[in-house]
Amino acid sequence: MELLNARFQRQINIGAAYYPEVLRDDALIADDISKMKQLGISVVRMGEFAWSTMEEKEGKVDFSFFRHVMDKMYEAEIAVIFCTPSPTPPKWLINKYPEILATKENGETKQFGARNDYCKSSPIYREKVKGISRKIAEALSDHPALVGWQVNNEISPREVCFCSYCKKGFSQYLKDKYKTIDALHAEWGANRWSLNYADFDDILPPRSDVWNHPSLNLEWERFHSKVNTDFINEEMKCIKAYSALPVGTDMMPIMEQDYYETNANADVVMFNHYEQNGFFAHPSLWYDYLRPIKNKPFWVTETQVNWNGAHYPEFGFRPENNCYINTWLPIAKGGELNMYWHWREHFAGQELYHGAVLSSSGRFAYNAFEIKKASDDFRKCKDILLNTRVQSDIAMHFSATAWRTFKYVQPLKNLNYLEFFYDRYHKAMRHYNVDLIDTPHDVSGYKTVISPFLSCVDEHGLKERMMEFVEKGGTWIVGPMSDILKDNAVKYTNAPYSFLEDFAGIYTQIQIPMETEEIKAVWKDGTPLPIGKTFDGYTLNGAESLAEYTSSYLKGLSVIAQKQVGKGKVIVVGSVISGEDMLRLVGVQPIFHASNNVELTKRGDCVIAIEIENQEGMIELPDVYRDVLTDKTYSGKITIGAFSVMVLQKE
Amino acid sequence: MELLNARFQRQINIGAAYYPEVLRDDALIADDISKMKQLGISVVRMGEFAWSTMEEKEGKVDFSFFRHVMDKMYEAEIAVIFCTPSPTPPKWLINKYPEILATKENGETKQFGARNDYCKSSPIYREKVKGISRKIAEALSDHPALVGWQVNNEISPREVCFCSYCKKGFSQYLKDKYKTIDALHAEWGANRWSLNYADFDDILPPRSDVWNHPSLNLEWERFHSKVNTDFINEEMKCIKAYSALPVGTDMMPIMEQDYYETNANADVVMFNHYEQNGFFAHPSLWYDYLRPIKNKPFWVTETQVNWNGAHYPEFGFRPENNCYINTWLPIAKGGELNMYWHWREHFAGQELYHGAVLSSSGRFAYNAFEIKKASDDFRKCKDILLNTRVQSDIAMHFSATAWRTFKYVQPLKNLNYLEFFYDRYHKAMRHYNVDLIDTPHDVSGYKTVISPFLSCVDEHGLKERMMEFVEKGGTWIVGPMSDILKDNAVKYTNAPYSFLEDFAGIYTQIQIPMETEEIKAVWKDGTPLPIGKTFDGYTLNGAESLAEYTSSYLKGLSVIAQKQVGKGKVIVVGSVISGEDMLRLVGVQPIFHASNNVELTKRGDCVIAIEIENQEGMIELPDVYRDVLTDKTYSGKITIGAFSVMVLQKE
Amino acid sequence: MELLNARFQRQINIGAAYYPEVLRDDALIADDISKMKQLGISVVRMGEFAWSTMEEKEGKVDFSFFRHVMDKMYEAEIAVIFCTPSPTPPKWLINKYPEILATKENGETKQFGARNDYCKSSPIYREKVKGISRKIAEALSDHPALVGWQVNNEISPREVCFCSYCKKGFSQYLKDKYKTIDALHAEWGANRWSLNYADFDDILPPRSDVWNHPSLNLEWERFHSKVNTDFINEEMKCIKAYSALPVGTDMMPIMEQDYYETNANADVVMFNHYEQNGFFAHPSLWYDYLRPIKNKPFWVTETQVNWNGAHYPEFGFRPENNCYINTWLPIAKGGELNMYWHWREHFAGQELYHGAVLSSSGRFAYNAFEIKKASDDFRKCKDILLNTRVQSDIAMHFSATAWRTFKYVQPLKNLNYLEFFYDRYHKAMRHYNVDLIDTPHDVSGYKTVISPFLSCVDEHGLKERMMEFVEKGGTWIVGPMSDILKDNAVKYTNAPYSFLEDFAGIYTQIQIPMETEEIKAVWKDGTPLPIGKTFDGYTLNGAESLAEYTSSYLKGLSVIAQKQVGKGKVIVVGSVISGEDMLRLVGVQPIFHASNNVELTKRGDCVIAIEIENQEGMIELPDVYRDVLTDKTYSGKITIGAFSVMVLQKE
Repeated sequence: MELLNARFQRQINIGAAYYPEVLRDDALIADDISKMKQLGISVVRMGEFAWSTMEEKEGKVDFSFFRHVMDKMYEAEIAVIFCTPSPTPPKWLINKYPEILATKENGETKQFGARNDYCKSSPIYREKVKGISRKIAEALSDHPALVGWQVNNEISPREVCFCSYCKKGFSQYLKDKYKTIDALHAEWGANRWSLNYADFDDILPPRSDVWNHPSLNLEWERFHSKVNTDFINEEMKCIKAYSALPVGTDMMPIMEQDYYETNANADVVMFNHYEQNGFFAHPSLWYDYLRPIKNKPFWVTETQVNWNGAHYPEFGFRPENNCYINTWLPIAKGGELNMYWHWREHFAGQELYHGAVLSSSGRFAYNAFEIKKASDDFRKCKDILLNTRVQSDIAMHFSATAWRTFKYVQPLKNLNYLEFFYDRYHKAMRHYNVDLIDTPHDVSGYKTVISPFLSCVDEHGLKERMMEFVEKGGTWIVGPMSDILKDNAVKYTNAPYSFLEDFAGIYTQIQIPMETEEIKAVWKDGTPLPIGKTFDGYTLNGAESLAEYTSSYLKGLSVIAQKQVGKGKVIVVGSVISGEDMLRLVGVQPIFHASNNVELTKRGDCVIAIEIENQEGMIELPDVYRDVLTDKTYSGKITIGAFSVMVLQKE
Repeated sequence: MELLNARFQRQINIGAAYYPEVLRDDALIADDISKMKQLGISVVRMGEFAWSTMEEKEGKVDFSFFRHVMDKMYEAEIAVIFCTPSPTPPKWLINKYPEILATKENGETKQFGARNDYCKSSPIYREKVKGISRKIAEALSDHPALVGWQVNNEISPREVCFCSYCKKGFSQYLKDKYKTIDALHAEWGANRWSLNYADFDDILPPRSDVWNHPSLNLEWERFHSKVNTDFINEEMKCIKAYSALPVGTDMMPIMEQDYYETNANADVVMFNHYEQNGFFAHPSLWYDYLRPIKNKPFWVTETQVNWNGAHYPEFGFRPENNCYINTWLPIAKGGELNMYWHWREHFAGQELYHGAVLSSSGRFAYNAFEIKKASDDFRKCKDILLNTRVQSDIAMHFSATAWRTFKYVQPLKNLNYLEFFYDRYHKAMRHYNVDLIDTPHDVSGYKTVISPFLSCVDEHGLKERMMEFVEKGGTWIVGPMSDILKDNAVKYTNAPYSFLEDFAGIYTQIQIPMETEEIKAVWKDGTPLPIGKTFDGYTLNGAESLAEYTSSYLKGLSVIAQKQVGKGKVIVVGSVISGEDMLRLVGVQPIFHASNNVELTKRGDCVIAIEIENQEGMIELPDVYRDVLTDKTYSGKITIGAFSVMVLQKE
Repeated sequence: MELLNARFQRQINIGAAYYPEVLRDDALIADDISKMKQLGISVVRMGEFAWSTMEEKEGKVDFSFFRHVMDKMYEAEIAVIFCTPSPTPPKWLINKYPEILATKENGETKQFGARNDYCKSSPIYREKVKGISRKIAEALSDHPALVGWQVNNEISPREVCFCSYCKKGFSQYLKDKYKTIDALHAEWGANRWSLNYADFDDILPPRSDVWNHPSLNLEWERFHSKVNTDFINEEMKCIKAYSALPVGTDMMPIMEQDYYETNANADVVMFNHYEQNGFFAHPSLWYDYLRPIKNKPFWVTETQVNWNGAHYPEFGFRPENNCYINTWLPIAKGGELNMYWHWREHFAGQELYHGAVLSSSGRFAYNAFEIKKASDDFRKCKDILLNTRVQSDIAMHFSATAWRTFKYVQPLKNLNYLEFFYDRYHKAMRHYNVDLIDTPHDVSGYKTVISPFLSCVDEHGLKERMMEFVEKGGTWIVGPMSDILKDNAVKYTNAPYSFLEDFAGIYTQIQIPMETEEIKAVWKDGTPLPIGKTFDGYTLNGAESLAEYTSSYLKGLSVIAQKQVGKGKVIVVGSVISGEDMLRLVGVQPIFHASNNVELTKRGDCVIAIEIENQEGMIELPDVYRDVLTDKTYSGKITIGAFSVMVLQKE
């Protein structure tokens, strides 16, 4: 890892979560370390939920056990990422300060017994978390095994608190955003159901037993994302006061918690994910999203070895090399560390039947030796992996605001933003380097920006930046369902969009947001254009039509229209088209022609090819290439094996 | 409309719900009115939820905005139905009187933020609602645009309140009905689970976490229907004190709220409905039910234009003329007004993606011009529509008590009264004028009364009236599953029915309430009689058998038995037979022979034919007829186009 | 019945639940008795929920009505089992002592209105229940109609109470079991999520809104099973103080309530069950389980006559002789009484549409006369039924601990212990006498013990007893998924089992708990061995392999291994094999060869054959047999009719 403690060599690392505090058995620890070495594991994550081990009783702080384990790790040349235990305050703390328990919407408080059931607005909870974080950093930052820090675990606003601190914070959040209560009323159309408030303090957090205004729901969730960000920022600040090593927080594949905002003060983007057998589709999407956030290598902090098991073993039997591919994919896509959850199956408690590298009785999982195989690979192509980046001319917008908005208002029935975005458009990009960027991200470096389902364009100055981007020569493909809502789920009233009609030279005559077979379209050259889900029909006002509707109410209206603006062009898409047709609009050649089960990533003058569907694949090489992993040479139309990897270097 | 303000011409009207208070923009209002005129819209509904616009703060009452809009409407010859805003008291009112919030079954109160979350037993709420209603009536009853009043919106006991007022009211309701607590105990079989109470005040409202006595559940719901009726009666009284124009309350297609009781003091029956694409079946049933209630034209106060969207656009893409047919059907069946919900899509808040006549940015919906088409039709056949009624010799019982009863006790598994009633028997009546009547309705004017699934016959004096009806020459077809329960879901103990065995001359030997293929039957003439769901087998005691069981335990018993009584006859049906076999028992000729996708309604010497399944239909004309809409002449076997209407006048 | 009051003749009895207190009508009672006699009903159950009839107001105790009914029964030679009404304390009692209402997990109390919503830890509730029980026993134990007692009804810890008594009792229960809080922490791995407690009183009952430690959930349920046992023990003690007649408590087919523990002080095992049409599979399993508990005849206290109907008629139309077979099966399997629920359909209240012997209006159910048929049979073979027992050489473990454990931790996804156990292994035993025994049961009398899915072997000294059993010559077939968890759902850490590897001479190399088609196996002789669900692969350490994996990660490892130990042998099974393959391991001949739809039970030198799938069956008789029911003689391959019974006595 680039930011690794100088005491360790720079390399691609493989790791696992380690909970030695559970059994506290030296023989076991020695055995564990020996087995880690057998597999090529070079990093462990420790301390995550171990508050009661660090501080058995209030003030009785003792890190000697963890230093002892870290000493053993250092001897074995295994690096340590140490975690703050903020999700699991001990019972003695809750007994003394019961007010830190989160409040449910009905006013009842949550109960001790699991994780993350605490209020992140609570001053006492924050104080205590900062206290233990400082003590950890103070006690361990000098340890030579240490290479980084993780604060908290899988923070998320999916479950929120309704205490008076949160209510007050929410009112303040809304006041900061809307300035006056009448502005909020006007924005939210409050007159309609007589939903006017006396002032910001009069606003009630949205309970689930009320048919709430969706803007209220959405803002409440966004507010909690911000509370969480403040919370982890405080934790990170405590660590940074004692240590210059990289700090981050490990997040789940959900966007209720804003990645850009949450990682603003982090040194490294951390990511946890668990997948169905053979399903590498979403991870691939997430890696394209994580990489540009800080434009440097991300860490996969958690992923499965074999079966998952929050409640029972699930997510399928993993055939040969599934674990191997799962280890390779993030690294190919720009990560520098892949960690398994977890090293040893738990012998008691929650998540009892979650698979791990070792069983509860310390025996290797059936597929554990695929870790060794990946580790050997990474050593072989270390130079390529450490010295190249994934560079892209194409960006697609993938937006936290769209994700949140479509939870609370649905312009289409059962709209699953992630599935829809992946299935329609990311999947088509398997043979391209593509960056998924959120709205705050700079667009100036790209040649093409694609923005499907980007409900809100007018945030973070993106509207102005996109206009400039096009003006200066970029191609912007926008729609379907883009620029249709403000960031608070409110529609525009002068036109269906904030600025797109004017900018793209169109007028939206008809909009039909319902699936039907009756509406059809063709490209200008007569090729059929499969469309679906939603249908916007344009008349032209400076644009030229690329494709038109041929039936029903929309007959003759344009479905795809293009306008030259300055040195560039904007293309508006009025229906859900296929990935192939989207590529036709992009008009750029892939890295190689290949079968669709092969992910291609260009790294410098190398191309990493990964077969992700457990069947043979095909690649057409335009030249002679050498596979760095096997040292064999290839050219022309070649075969790539099921679940295998090739690192193709141009000869 | 017959009751329209004298300042407007008598006509069939088309309207829409209008919420000008949300944007308060004169230019927009002018544009809206101009577009209404383009479509032939002649009525708007206003004020429905606008309490905070009428009374911004306590006592600060101001109707000038609404008068201003009404002035504009009047200028444009658009009539106004004004509404009371009782479902949405403003926040300032709840802040001052939090006790008006409804109480949930666990004792928590509901929360401000939506509609209808208030206790209709609350004296303060009632007082405040009466206050605003009086102020509205006082302020607006002189306005020349006004043609009617709506109080409340979609009142229903589906969500009820558990406050002390409701509890007390419930005890009093039970006392009024059962007189003594021991009578209630005997009636409810309270001894069985030791469910005896000390007195009526000792009775607890039924919480959903208790496995309650079904009679308790049913009476609790019926009690709330009565509370709601009292509530809207108070509102109507306030209006009537200032205005002679018609007043009503718009109800949904559910019978938890008793239509006869609720409309007793109303001047007009109002109805809201939203349907799946192409599904005109249930509306057709409801119109046959609504029309006889007051025996005068009803108003459809809400229906969809295109897509519904409480949460997302749904209920299907509407093919050409779906909206046109949806506008025609209630008028053909005896309504005089059809109103869309709503004029302009909301730009914020709940129901954001519900379709409307105009989009949020004021553009016509794709099918908006079908409104104009219907409007033109109504002008063409105005005389027929205004001067004729739908008259029927046949009535079918459709009962609020059965509807409620089958919610709490189910003599058959998964018995859906509405679906069952429609699918088996109403659907068979498409080529007949038929009235659906509830048990309080007079039966003396009919020749045939059909009573399937009429769980309780012995209420509102119906038992005696049916005996008299038969005695005097009527035909009563009764069953299956009729006369089997009292109005409180209690069975009779001497026989399976209250009086049917004696009256119809049968003895019920065997009852099997389980679906099976093993039980079969035939008509006396040997024609197979398909039966199902439930099987009552009769021996005869004065009746003659029309059809018999031929297999299993019931072999040889009668399944349909008929007895002459006085000048008429009673026919008892012991199993669920088909609509066709029911028609065989009725023995009356249809208006015309026609294909089943055509609804025929006789109006004077005209017949209105409506194709409701979007496919070509067939009608056999016994004579020469002229279509008033096209002025073309037809005879013999003719074709009616998909989703089209013919108004056939005998030449 | 063996324990019948001496005033009645020893016989097999048929009975029904009777609730004369509901209507209190002498004519009706006389009619009921006359109809009972017609059907051969010789026992009624009375008093079950009739507290308010026994004690109308506090202290106003009066049993004259029940004595009166019992007099009538005695005159008719119908015996009475009298019940305590503890599930339904009257409202006056709850009004005076509201604290007896159970507390829900959120602290709210339950509400009067149904059954069993009371806290069984409550001292007042216990006192009042003991009071009424003593009064019943005192008042009725001298009555000559009386033949036994039932306390409570369907007691179960599925719904539990969270009051302070229960919380305190739970802490004490855990203290008694784990001794020190640190021992509990170590056992439960509490350090992992910082779940350490200050002391036992610091432990909180597990609410459902917390992601609880599964051991906490499991112990909480087990604690309530013990509370329930204490509760019914107190009731039984009150009865026994006045009466020597047999006492029991009627339990449902669930094992959350431990059968062995609950019946420890009972005189007779009572059982209630309700089944889908034609489904005699689970009852057959339960009878094999109930019979060995006390090694004497059990009572079926409740079963359906025709349809069930907690909420509507369901569980299917019963074809001819379904009720007859349902009456015979428990008697053949070792019961001495079969009672229907219930005599007469309720006319009001909960369970309104539950079928019965008579309808609410006193008419015979369509299949009521099958009761008479069974009654006549029992008289014919009275001597065989009364003088023989079901004896078995084979036992299978069926474990309450496994049942409970698999609710809270699932080593396989969607593991339904009952279905799995029945479908895989009990079903294969239809032509064998087999005892299902729980872990406390003595194993010394058997030749073969089969223990599949027996998660915990190390409880009740079973581990040591099984070792001794094998040592002395028994065959123990163990697995899959046996010996894998302690009784508190905690895994072993040295090996996947507590002792099985050492004892059976194996080492478990690989464990894969996921279904897959990729893993296959064969017997040593090359016969394919179908396997599934979970895959443990063994290397041998003293055992010999009987079957091996042939593919994937496990190739070459043993799946079934056998070791000679002392005079016996242990066979370990590593995957889910078929019932047929399990029988191959057992290696014993069936009673007769027969088709699989025939249940065979050996009783002395007789064999009772029952066809349970409503289709013709086949039996191969090795000799000449006489059917005691028809007196016909048979030999060779014979046919048994659909839903019929043969009592075959060797000539």
